[in-house]
Amino acid sequence: MHSIGTLVLLRHGESTWNAENLFTGWVDVPLSDKGMTEAHRGGELLAEAGLLPDVVHTSLLRRAITTANVALDAADRHWIPVKRDWRLNERHYGALQGKNKKQTLAEFGEEQFMRWRRSYDTPPPPIELGSEFSQDADPRYADLGDAAPRTECLKDVVARMLPYWEAEVVPDLRAGRTVLLAAHGNSLRALVKHLDGISDTDIAGLNIPTGIPLRYDLTDDLRPLTPGGEYLDPETAAKAAAAVANQGR
Amino acid sequence: MHSIGTLVLLRHGESTWNAENLFTGWVDVPLSDKGMTEAHRGGELLAEAGLLPDVVHTSLLRRAITTANVALDAADRHWIPVKRDWRLNERHYGALQGKNKKQTLAEFGEEQFMRWRRSYDTPPPPIELGSEFSQDADPRYADLGDAAPRTECLKDVVARMLPYWEAEVVPDLRAGRTVLLAAHGNSLRALVKHLDGISDTDIAGLNIPTGIPLRYDLTDDLRPLTPGGEYLDPETAAKAAAAVANQGR
Repeated sequence: MHSIGTLVLLRHGESTWNAENLFTGWVDVPLSDKGMTEAHRGGELLAEAGLLPDVVHTSLLRRAITTANVALDAADRHWIPVKRDWRLNERHYGALQGKNKKQTLAEFGEEQFMRWRRSYDTPPPPIELGSEFSQDADPRYADLGDAAPRTECLKDVVARMLPYWEAEVVPDLRAGRTVLLAAHGNSLRALVKHLDGISDTDIAGLNIPTGIPLRYDLTDDLRPLTPGGEYLDPETAAKAAAAVANQGR
Repeated sequence: MHSIGTLVLLRHGESTWNAENLFTGWVDVPLSDKGMTEAHRGGELLAEAGLLPDVVHTSLLRRAITTANVALDAADRHWIPVKRDWRLNERHYGALQGKNKKQTLAEFGEEQFMRWRRSYDTPPPPIELGSEFSQDADPRYADLGDAAPRTECLKDVVARMLPYWEAEVVPDLRAGRTVLLAAHGNSLRALVKHLDGISDTDIAGLNIPTGIPLRYDLTDDLRPLTPGGEYLDPETAAKAAAAVANQGR
């Protein structure tokens, strides 16, 4: 089988809003101190595994960008080429952005809460233009114009992420590069859904832990050699995935 | 006059080897705590001046990359496109890399010391391949092969930096972008020499302080509107330039 490059997915470390249990989406919050430590550990794991990225792709959000910067510095790969794109951003959480997860659960009930968090095709209500946690005046999205989302479900994330994957990431892999993709819980779930052929229903149960590199070796037709990929620290990854599933409880 | 984009030069903040008064060149040392503070302040100066970069160019060295990362984060421009190239690296200091400046001054005398530091066309002796502070096994320069320098004078830096300037930076400026160029004392001196038309002799007296953005508004034929550019914090810049001139004393 023809060998192509290796893909490494890295979900950003804990942000200040993860720590406060707020819906974040496109709000550009920084990493917490714990998140900085996670990012550094992620880079050490890359170095220990000898899995050295040749190029990094990030979202336009600080928590993914800082995670990539810190991890690559720890792996002595801070100097590699960088590509950034909004299509790797976290899911836009619409009117829920800035709201407390526990309060939202109490206010709207378990069923509605879980539908917004985990259903494949039900977005939250759109965010009001000009409101505190809206990005409509943010210069980094100015080129998008009216195409900028005001809310997204996971299906929307798949639809905007896959064209970037095909156009920008796959060519790097086909060139034999090791590609680090530093992004978010939902943009990475969208990609993993695609790679592993996970159904619209089953993807609800998949959580990706923060700060632990997830390695995918891909066949020539871009299928994973090992379904689900391989975490560089599988034990910590399993514990963390379970914890993510309990958010809002 | 046709208006083109604005160039902003930023010399990295103090590195651990600046602090220890060692010749650094291509040795990839980190910023000191003071250097991190300088980088952050540099970003605040950009934000306060409303001088917001649309794209950043850096060398392949950690001290310039971290400076750009920290400054852009402080200016809320962490998300802009990034380009990196070895041709923005510091001057390769040859066999002097890793040596103490004061000891070198004592060992070789004022005349030889100043010739290595400030003459336009006298490089130090080349570094020995495979020695502690050589970069011949460094993967980031693997593509250069035998073209990788083993020592450089400022003239050599001009010769390798200008093609990058013309091919990669000028097109960004002509597209109307504000370009941040995060680099080093000597790669920035090489560029300023070119922009301001400074003679091979006079460039010896020019020092660029660390961490203070230097703004160049350029005419359509790439001449500075204000000769020498404008520091965003001119008072601190003047003091710092004087201090640089006294290194090794």
